[in-house]
Amino acid sequence: MAEKRLGRQTVAFQNPPVIVGMAAVAGPKEGEGPLGADFDHVYRDVTLGQDSFEKAEREMMKNACLTALQKAGLTPADVDFFLAGDLLNQIITASFTALEIGAPYLGVYGACSTSAEGLALAAMLIDGGFARRVLVACSSHNATAERQYRYPVEYGGQRKPYSQWTVTGAGAAVLSREGEGPRVTHATLGKVFDHGVKDPYNQGAAMAPAAADTIVRHLLDTGRRPEDYDLIATGDLARFGHQLARELVARDAGITLGDNFTDCGILIYREDQGVHSGGSGCACSAVVTFGHFAREMERGRIRRLLLVATGALLSTTSAQQGENIPAVAHGVVIEAR
Amino acid sequence: MAEKRLGRQTVAFQNPPVIVGMAAVAGPKEGEGPLGADFDHVYRDVTLGQDSFEKAEREMMKNACLTALQKAGLTPADVDFFLAGDLLNQIITASFTALEIGAPYLGVYGACSTSAEGLALAAMLIDGGFARRVLVACSSHNATAERQYRYPVEYGGQRKPYSQWTVTGAGAAVLSREGEGPRVTHATLGKVFDHGVKDPYNQGAAMAPAAADTIVRHLLDTGRRPEDYDLIATGDLARFGHQLARELVARDAGITLGDNFTDCGILIYREDQGVHSGGSGCACSAVVTFGHFAREMERGRIRRLLLVATGALLSTTSAQQGENIPAVAHGVVIEAR
Repeated sequence: MAEKRLGRQTVAFQNPPVIVGMAAVAGPKEGEGPLGADFDHVYRDVTLGQDSFEKAEREMMKNACLTALQKAGLTPADVDFFLAGDLLNQIITASFTALEIGAPYLGVYGACSTSAEGLALAAMLIDGGFARRVLVACSSHNATAERQYRYPVEYGGQRKPYSQWTVTGAGAAVLSREGEGPRVTHATLGKVFDHGVKDPYNQGAAMAPAAADTIVRHLLDTGRRPEDYDLIATGDLARFGHQLARELVARDAGITLGDNFTDCGILIYREDQGVHSGGSGCACSAVVTFGHFAREMERGRIRRLLLVATGALLSTTSAQQGENIPAVAHGVVIEAR
Repeated sequence: MAEKRLGRQTVAFQNPPVIVGMAAVAGPKEGEGPLGADFDHVYRDVTLGQDSFEKAEREMMKNACLTALQKAGLTPADVDFFLAGDLLNQIITASFTALEIGAPYLGVYGACSTSAEGLALAAMLIDGGFARRVLVACSSHNATAERQYRYPVEYGGQRKPYSQWTVTGAGAAVLSREGEGPRVTHATLGKVFDHGVKDPYNQGAAMAPAAADTIVRHLLDTGRRPEDYDLIATGDLARFGHQLARELVARDAGITLGDNFTDCGILIYREDQGVHSGGSGCACSAVVTFGHFAREMERGRIRRLLLVATGALLSTTSAQQGENIPAVAHGVVIEAR
């Protein structure tokens, strides 16, 4: 058996799986942001005409999946596995969507790192010879997340200056053994870190150490430098967390990240959209990657991307019981063909 | 690339990964059941001396992991990935345990099918060449599940006759490319089914169609008959759901399942233990498999096992919003060496 491991945490694909279809759908606020034109569909309101926000989120995930499949010229019957996750308790968005997709279903949970966890696992299942095509998806919805994790939006709770805005949207991608499209060449799977952050509004700070570690580990495992990437994008650290990650990488590993170091949670909204530190949620890295970065690859502006999606692994129970917020970050390398 | 797929939903491992260590820990009620002597550790009370039931559950998962590693002569540093899940919102048991294990962490969620989902994914990561050793774990705790899904136990809510008792326990296994132990030879990954059950107490009925489908699909994909297995064990259908699954397999596929067809939720408690239909929870199939079936393999009484772990993919939100309960079942074949 050929060795597909590099160092302690990185896998290198022997026949890098091809992303033959990608789709990003988003809510109106995301549509009004700087990347709005790069999404496949922008909904006019956050209910999508459904009678609950949860059903609206589910509708978004389904639409992202069907659009990604359609762009690849495929139907749900053409995929061997459906890998999906979201932020809702017991990942009901993913499970109910799996019912509609009808393919064998593997639920995954990495909070906002789910996009990269799904991509990494899908790529391993294909390169390992267990699937020809895998559909991955994740979603988040501002209103379902706010009422589950914090307060219903109607309550009008005060937002802290470092709080983040959960992205309303869904992203999906079809990975295939063969075909045309960007390729997933490497994945660096992250360890869980706890740096003592207890404030559930301060997720950027909770996740920054995990992001920094995964970036450093990826560079060490692959022997690459930050300049080898057109873009190194964290998932949803937002302004405060992203600056902290940059400082941690410099302090702990002596590596200087340049202008190619960005964050999906910073890119997705304008500063004047009232989102405070920036965006968050499973959909944040998913819609920026499968919407914006995908098109930047088509435009020839990005050739090699390191996506480091970050997840805060808290629940309301763990937060109310006074626990710290553990965090994880998973990296995937996507190269334009 | 060699084809490792059989039919539509089954994967056959080229170099079947070896389960080099297994452990099952359980609460006092499970210890008093018929399989009590086969668990590695039985706790005297359900708090494990912790100040919350959630911390007690976490302690069980950690202990199951460390015991499985110890039995394999390994430490957490020897594993390439930690794959785990549980029933608590945002799978906090798994994520907080991942912090202690320290290996790259992939959270999985399949409700009570998590044991088989983890085993299947771990086996694919190893046979695919991405890992030498993978640690998998799952857990459930009666008190954390009751207060999350239904009522706090202190409330004394009336239990319906077909209700099930969430198992307090945790199971863990170390899969390895090499070594001595039973092997994971096949996995049949399930699709999600919805047969209109809305009552969250009636999970056996909700899950039976998914279990029946995965069993039939497994037999068709592999060309095997039920008699080719010493045991075909569903995860936690319990008495009512198990009988229903048997009838569905007969009615829909004309296949008669014999005395070798059993259910972990039936095996784990005596009928006079007041558990109504039987056991449930992520730990149900995990402790029966990694505790009891593992020892039955050592005793030479089981050589080839098909474990079909079943999951009810509801949340309190989906149930309270009047949704049906979707369900999934994943099968793994474990053969004694």
